[in-house]
Amino acid sequence: MDDLKAFRQWRSRTPGHPENFETPGVEVTTGPLGQGFANAVGLALAEKHLAARFNKTDLNIVDHYTYVILGDGCQMEGVSNEAASLAGHWGLGKLIAFYDDNHISIDGNTDIAFTENVSARYEALGWHTIWVKNGNTGYDDIRAAIKEAKRVKDKPTLIKVTTTIGFGSPNKANTYSVHGSALGSKEVEATRSNLQWFHEPFHVPDEVKRHWSHHIDEGASLEAEWNAKFAEYEKKYHQEAAELKSIISGELPSRWDNALPTYTPESSPDATRNLSQQCLNSLAKVIPGFLGGSADLATSNMTLLKMFGDFQRDTPEERNIRFGVREHGMGAISNGIAVHSPGLIPYCATFFVFTDYMRAAIRLSALSESGVIFVMTHDSIGLGEDGPTHQPVEQLFSLRAMPNILMLRPADGNETSGAYKVAVLNRKRPSVIALSRQKLPQLKGTSVDSVSKGGYIISDNSSDNKPDLIVIGTGSELEIAEKAADELRKEGRTVRVVSLVCWELFEEQPEKYKESVLPSEVTSRISIEAGVTFGWEKYIGQKGKAIGIDSFGISAPAGKIFKELGLTVENVIAAAKAL
Amino acid sequence: MDDLKAFRQWRSRTPGHPENFETPGVEVTTGPLGQGFANAVGLALAEKHLAARFNKTDLNIVDHYTYVILGDGCQMEGVSNEAASLAGHWGLGKLIAFYDDNHISIDGNTDIAFTENVSARYEALGWHTIWVKNGNTGYDDIRAAIKEAKRVKDKPTLIKVTTTIGFGSPNKANTYSVHGSALGSKEVEATRSNLQWFHEPFHVPDEVKRHWSHHIDEGASLEAEWNAKFAEYEKKYHQEAAELKSIISGELPSRWDNALPTYTPESSPDATRNLSQQCLNSLAKVIPGFLGGSADLATSNMTLLKMFGDFQRDTPEERNIRFGVREHGMGAISNGIAVHSPGLIPYCATFFVFTDYMRAAIRLSALSESGVIFVMTHDSIGLGEDGPTHQPVEQLFSLRAMPNILMLRPADGNETSGAYKVAVLNRKRPSVIALSRQKLPQLKGTSVDSVSKGGYIISDNSSDNKPDLIVIGTGSELEIAEKAADELRKEGRTVRVVSLVCWELFEEQPEKYKESVLPSEVTSRISIEAGVTFGWEKYIGQKGKAIGIDSFGISAPAGKIFKELGLTVENVIAAAKAL
Repeated sequence: MDDLKAFRQWRSRTPGHPENFETPGVEVTTGPLGQGFANAVGLALAEKHLAARFNKTDLNIVDHYTYVILGDGCQMEGVSNEAASLAGHWGLGKLIAFYDDNHISIDGNTDIAFTENVSARYEALGWHTIWVKNGNTGYDDIRAAIKEAKRVKDKPTLIKVTTTIGFGSPNKANTYSVHGSALGSKEVEATRSNLQWFHEPFHVPDEVKRHWSHHIDEGASLEAEWNAKFAEYEKKYHQEAAELKSIISGELPSRWDNALPTYTPESSPDATRNLSQQCLNSLAKVIPGFLGGSADLATSNMTLLKMFGDFQRDTPEERNIRFGVREHGMGAISNGIAVHSPGLIPYCATFFVFTDYMRAAIRLSALSESGVIFVMTHDSIGLGEDGPTHQPVEQLFSLRAMPNILMLRPADGNETSGAYKVAVLNRKRPSVIALSRQKLPQLKGTSVDSVSKGGYIISDNSSDNKPDLIVIGTGSELEIAEKAADELRKEGRTVRVVSLVCWELFEEQPEKYKESVLPSEVTSRISIEAGVTFGWEKYIGQKGKAIGIDSFGISAPAGKIFKELGLTVENVIAAAKAL
Repeated sequence: MDDLKAFRQWRSRTPGHPENFETPGVEVTTGPLGQGFANAVGLALAEKHLAARFNKTDLNIVDHYTYVILGDGCQMEGVSNEAASLAGHWGLGKLIAFYDDNHISIDGNTDIAFTENVSARYEALGWHTIWVKNGNTGYDDIRAAIKEAKRVKDKPTLIKVTTTIGFGSPNKANTYSVHGSALGSKEVEATRSNLQWFHEPFHVPDEVKRHWSHHIDEGASLEAEWNAKFAEYEKKYHQEAAELKSIISGELPSRWDNALPTYTPESSPDATRNLSQQCLNSLAKVIPGFLGGSADLATSNMTLLKMFGDFQRDTPEERNIRFGVREHGMGAISNGIAVHSPGLIPYCATFFVFTDYMRAAIRLSALSESGVIFVMTHDSIGLGEDGPTHQPVEQLFSLRAMPNILMLRPADGNETSGAYKVAVLNRKRPSVIALSRQKLPQLKGTSVDSVSKGGYIISDNSSDNKPDLIVIGTGSELEIAEKAADELRKEGRTVRVVSLVCWELFEEQPEKYKESVLPSEVTSRISIEAGVTFGWEKYIGQKGKAIGIDSFGISAPAGKIFKELGLTVENVIAAAKAL
């Protein structure tokens, strides 16, 4: 009751919108419209997948419904249509959505902007639909609708429940003024009188308490029942039980990271998107809850798990998820999968530039501590001919600016494996891994474990901690940094090359370590990165030189673009000489 | 022909995706899926609006159809559903969309992720639908479908045209391998032979040339006809003609900016969202092509134009657009309005944090040089109780990182007017104006015209150009900067306060001006801004102190959050003393 009284107050468990990290029992952080609905599709997907993998003819160990309530605003958002289309396609029969059809949104009656036939749209998306005409008091109708929804096993169900917003308030019901504002004392009085409710504020009558407290025993007995069932399951199906347990607990198998490939400078050059596929496939073999997919770019993002088939309506035990061209829905569904069980580790993929399509979901992943792995290939102008609409230049910084998320840009095989190691270990914050389309050499000096420090020295010919120059690079430009350093070293200069693969992790290192990598004394610094230079001042200081791209890209072969935009060894050398 | 041969080459007019700024005749920059379709809804809205305003019973001066082609990928994207729902709601009868139903996307057959009934969905959204079953060679059916679409005047039409991707290629037709890759010489030969096409590469037979060149005369005569009609219109309806001309040419009325309100420190404190509404209403009175709206937050964003009604199906001459909760669609539709005519100046609004929902459209606005005005209220933790999902902290930087866009964060009335002046003048780059929910005082030292310099001194008690300290603020924190400076001045220190209202504009100033505002000699610098501190190194240097918020916000009354997170006068003073 104290929590309720602290509604919307500092550090209360009852903030303005439900937050899974503030309030026990809140499963997903929602508020931004349409997200919760898409999360629910992810939750229902997780249930269908786990049920298919772990249930036995004699023991149904995973078996629950996913319920979600959504309003008119959620229905207008594109992300909900994306998620609904997938839910229909996958036949998520245990997903039941209540659409609170109160025909009022913040700007007034929905007639002013929302006159489509929502139920007909859902039918077109492959859903079963039901209409409860009196959602204010038609409890039996709602109960009947739920029963009907459960009977339909091959389709998700939308129950359109027509209601009156502010039901009971004589003067404000059915108006937008009850959406976000309190009724005010006068109207509270009028509403009490209208509803014949004469208890003190915050008083719950005994009768109501009694009614609801039944659920405590009910819940306890359901839990005991399941525990007994699981004990039996464990006896009969030892290996499956262990696997399911690890998914429920989130405990990673021991030495899981040994599965990640390592490389030497002699290993073949390769695109980091291909090296990423090696990681994904290695991880899926050892981590039972590892699953994911791409927004219709699996063969470009290189995200297919070769040992598994597609998660589909009739093959839900498989782990390759086909999201279609629905980046936003993909992100929000992945958030739902991540919060279903701590051991489910979803990854999802598209071109890096299209993080813009799914940014609202990525932000909720960060805010709600969902450790989704965002696999983002074609990470710079290096993608070439597709041109500026497809070439990210500002996305690195726009994500580095976001709290509680790791933005990783590996330079080669070891760093790609390192990025995945970091991503898997960070179950409470998501990772974005930016990967190249083009081939990159395996560099000397990179390592899997150094990635966890965010930034580290990959080469240095100075004998003290005072090189003449520090060149800092990330991803595909680390090679350029290294080549330029080699040239400068031939001319007798001492040069250090630093890989700054993850700024957030570097910032978390002890001051002493940071100083050992980037000594304050050395102010001759150059950064090179195929993206906007904005933000690099942090590491190169006011005397340093940032080489990057401060405009949109352009359509041409990648090599030509790198050259024309000045991302070259020659340019680094020239900058070094001009410093 | 040379352009075609330079397909996807550096600075060619035939880049990998169509770009309106590279190629004459390309109306909108597309490539990211679903955007072009939503642009088309904006183009059709513009036509309907202008037709309603300018056509006379005897003279139809605005009268054209909008055609758009979209594929399976576009149909899967949520943004297209948002735009389609609005097009149906508005009854855009002259919008004709061809849906290239080739059932192939990049990952293969659309069966793997897209099995909804698209036409039924569009019918639910209020569209008329037609199906052309043979889109490969059924030219007459396509012509008949267009005729039918034109007969239906109260609904937009979706013509589903079933086609074979790579039609004619004997081995690659109907596969994803023809989506983005060239056929290869062997398959080109096979295709030529199959289609009986034996001309040299890049040769257009005379017969074909003749057929298409008819359109040159046809177009010229249509233009002459319209010019004659417009001459007549000009005579009969002088004032309307002048107004329409200014919309077509983009020429602003003389002294339009006099309409913007100015303030003195004695003027009442007010939320910049309210001051923004003054600007919007002032501008709409003097600029004929000024129109826009909000994504269901008109009364929160304060974006209603009081002298106009709602743009709706039967009142298309009005200028308040009700976008519903569809931020992404709103952005893309606004881009379409902006490119329809240079004199149409669309604004669109939501909470600042929800720029994340529409970021892909904002980026295309920047890339395609569409001067949309993005009115973004509730611009920081200052919105209070709604909590972290609604509180932007990283959005300022994520937009400052984007090329060709102005990120403005005005501090008071004068700066808000200044921001709108900049936004209206920048017709080739969009502006994002971040506005407060909470009241702010009218500061001494701010001015409308200084905003165009991006950064300027609002107060300074030093006699030379060497104050002891520079405090830099933006938006709602400029007041805190000023108050702290006053306290420090009382203690005998010389302090300069700088408003950095628009970083991009400040960067464009001559070095001399920048040095006059932020002299390199003065390294004692403090920034204060209610957002992430990342990026401020650029202006405060490595010795400076950035006061901001490097985590997500929290639900509580605004004043409490400012205090708890350290955005206070006391904190600035303490930082000044610690420097």
